[in-house]
Amino acid sequence: MRLHGFFRSGASYRVRIALGMKGIAFEQTSYMLRRGDQRQPAYLDMNPQGLVPTLELDDGTRLTQSVAILEWLEETHPQPSMLPSDPLQRARVRAFALAIACDIHPVQNLGVLNAVKALGHTEAQVNDWAKRVNSDGLDACEKMIAGNFGPFCFGNQPTMADICLVPQLVNARRFGCDMTRWPRLLAAEAACMALPYFAAAAPELQPDAE
Amino acid sequence: MRLHGFFRSGASYRVRIALGMKGIAFEQTSYMLRRGDQRQPAYLDMNPQGLVPTLELDDGTRLTQSVAILEWLEETHPQPSMLPSDPLQRARVRAFALAIACDIHPVQNLGVLNAVKALGHTEAQVNDWAKRVNSDGLDACEKMIAGNFGPFCFGNQPTMADICLVPQLVNARRFGCDMTRWPRLLAAEAACMALPYFAAAAPELQPDAE
Repeated sequence: MRLHGFFRSGASYRVRIALGMKGIAFEQTSYMLRRGDQRQPAYLDMNPQGLVPTLELDDGTRLTQSVAILEWLEETHPQPSMLPSDPLQRARVRAFALAIACDIHPVQNLGVLNAVKALGHTEAQVNDWAKRVNSDGLDACEKMIAGNFGPFCFGNQPTMADICLVPQLVNARRFGCDMTRWPRLLAAEAACMALPYFAAAAPELQPDAE
Repeated sequence: MRLHGFFRSGASYRVRIALGMKGIAFEQTSYMLRRGDQRQPAYLDMNPQGLVPTLELDDGTRLTQSVAILEWLEETHPQPSMLPSDPLQRARVRAFALAIACDIHPVQNLGVLNAVKALGHTEAQVNDWAKRVNSDGLDACEKMIAGNFGPFCFGNQPTMADICLVPQLVNARRFGCDMTRWPRLLAAEAACMALPYFAAAAPELQPDAE
């Protein structure tokens, strides 16, 4: 498999973690987002949204949207599982993952930040936007798992929730959020980073890291 | 079951369609979003994000995040199915649904539009933002299903893709998008609206419609 992505892309990072979790070897092709590589015609042919990542299978099939890719990996490579077996628990894990994937990540992503800048705002105002989106969103995430035992988001195994959380916390730090607000999230992150496949997926360890 | 939502909320609309598809009777509690009902403490207790919808089960269990609710409905009420059986096709359906649920809907939603307004922009500039997000996003969606036979997004049965598409097209019209750009999306919408449970879920038919 080949992951078309970018070391700093949170959505690419999710898929790197999941591929590692499932023990699937993959190669990477890097797209420099600020240079607009993801909007070149050849890439748009495989991903009409012009977003990373795209997962290219060995037969040339291309899959887009990181959470859809996680679900596909779970269905085709069930072990180790990234979803609990109980439907209600699966719903809670997915709700947490989607709170990040729908309501935090896209709203603080490069495209939206560029749109805010294009309205005539400064870099500082743009960063303030991104910081607020991360802070408000992760405040809600902290509450969503407050009642669960750990050390991971949902119990003693990492799930799709952790796979979405870890990359988002990298963004929250980058935008200067007060991380002390989220002790439960940080505990889950620490448990994840002790696992080799989470550690190996970190942005700074990728071949295209600057 | 009780759906905590709002007639005009696209995410609530998705869940209304899915409940109808599965033949599940439900009651509704309405939250006037512009008045901030969804940020009252009692609601935040069940949905820490302060977003609609929340699906409350008969035993009091509350589920959040519309796409997680769709997946839960599919797992607990498998027939009629809103996902194909083939994993690759499931991945394509989910990618289309998430292209809307992650990258269009949240970026043109009330909270973000209020944030743009708070930066000092006019109602016209805010609407222009929402129109552009819908136009660019739905352009990509049109391409994502261009190669599939219809009449629905993915073949001759409605899926999670259609359940996310139909409410988004309502928003696109509201923000004044040029709908003629998307003949394939409109054909899928027409096929959906001929089904009683899609028709019954329309915003203007809900008890809280203004």
